[in-house]
Amino acid sequence: MKLLEERILKDGKIGAGNVLKVDSFLNHQIDVPFLTLLGKEFHRLYRDSGVNKILTIEASGIGIACLTAVEFGVPVVFAKKTLTNNIYADVYTSSVYSYTHQKNYEIVVSRQFLSNGDRVLIIDDFLAKGSALLALLSLIRDAGAEVVGAGIVIEKAYQEGGAIVRAQGVRVESLARIASMTPGDGITFCD
Amino acid sequence: MKLLEERILKDGKIGAGNVLKVDSFLNHQIDVPFLTLLGKEFHRLYRDSGVNKILTIEASGIGIACLTAVEFGVPVVFAKKTLTNNIYADVYTSSVYSYTHQKNYEIVVSRQFLSNGDRVLIIDDFLAKGSALLALLSLIRDAGAEVVGAGIVIEKAYQEGGAIVRAQGVRVESLARIASMTPGDGITFCD
Repeated sequence: MKLLEERILKDGKIGAGNVLKVDSFLNHQIDVPFLTLLGKEFHRLYRDSGVNKILTIEASGIGIACLTAVEFGVPVVFAKKTLTNNIYADVYTSSVYSYTHQKNYEIVVSRQFLSNGDRVLIIDDFLAKGSALLALLSLIRDAGAEVVGAGIVIEKAYQEGGAIVRAQGVRVESLARIASMTPGDGITFCD
Repeated sequence: MKLLEERILKDGKIGAGNVLKVDSFLNHQIDVPFLTLLGKEFHRLYRDSGVNKILTIEASGIGIACLTAVEFGVPVVFAKKTLTNNIYADVYTSSVYSYTHQKNYEIVVSRQFLSNGDRVLIIDDFLAKGSALLALLSLIRDAGAEVVGAGIVIEKAYQEGGAIVRAQGVRVESLARIASMTPGDGITFCD
């Protein structure tokens, strides 16, 4: 998506550890009018797939998931990263390794909000090594629900996550696919 | 807001520790079409206040904040609960006591995304003792920005947060104000 690539080139910053910082529009400040356009693009891609629920993971997936859900007219369920007092005991659980924080954490979704018969579109801000996406897929399978596909804002295509998930037969649509990224040479996108 | 009160009575559950569980539509599963109506109500209340930014706190505030921001056409900034590798060092910080988790945590907002000249509407899902709201107000004041007011989905009016914040001269608009709540007698709303 040209508009997104241009925005990444304009506002993205390559930080320590080759991290792409897009927190001016995607995951700290959220440019809601801009993300609405991304939501419309996800809707264009998946509108014929019978999506009845969008699944994401807290916290940075929630904004883009909600703005996409507006287009579909469906609810969002967000997987929570820790088991709080406020959540029902009856949950689906999966494990995610965070490369940012260099530790494992659990994600949970209440069994009430994911079940067979659901046709689920996963929405997330980033896809790199695929740990979060694989964990969300595991929750959906545990629930007996159907995975329609995944909509990713930014895929680091030089990391293995996208290939692993697509090899499972899951449709993955990424609005921007980064082919390479270094502080010296900047960002190049896949054709 | 009658529609919200009816939804709370229909789907809200009073859990252990007199916690109101509304995770079927507000803070685990997000009923996006319904929350869009709440966003329109916040817009009706604050549309003449010159709001140019919405501030909330991760994770459960992000959905309603984004759906409200759609109506205003402004960005959302969400305060983060821990300092990650991905955030700029240059942040405003404040402390929140979580009664749910019974511990203090820090919230941070990058100085890039809050500054004087901003006219900020705070949006959050709950107001009870006011700890999170007071911390957000502190961030806004540290930034030299203007607080337009706060839009709260559910206020527990029998707890002190709303009174404390209103006594500071801050406009607080809550779409549902709970007067009392017990597992035996259920939920009653303020007039």
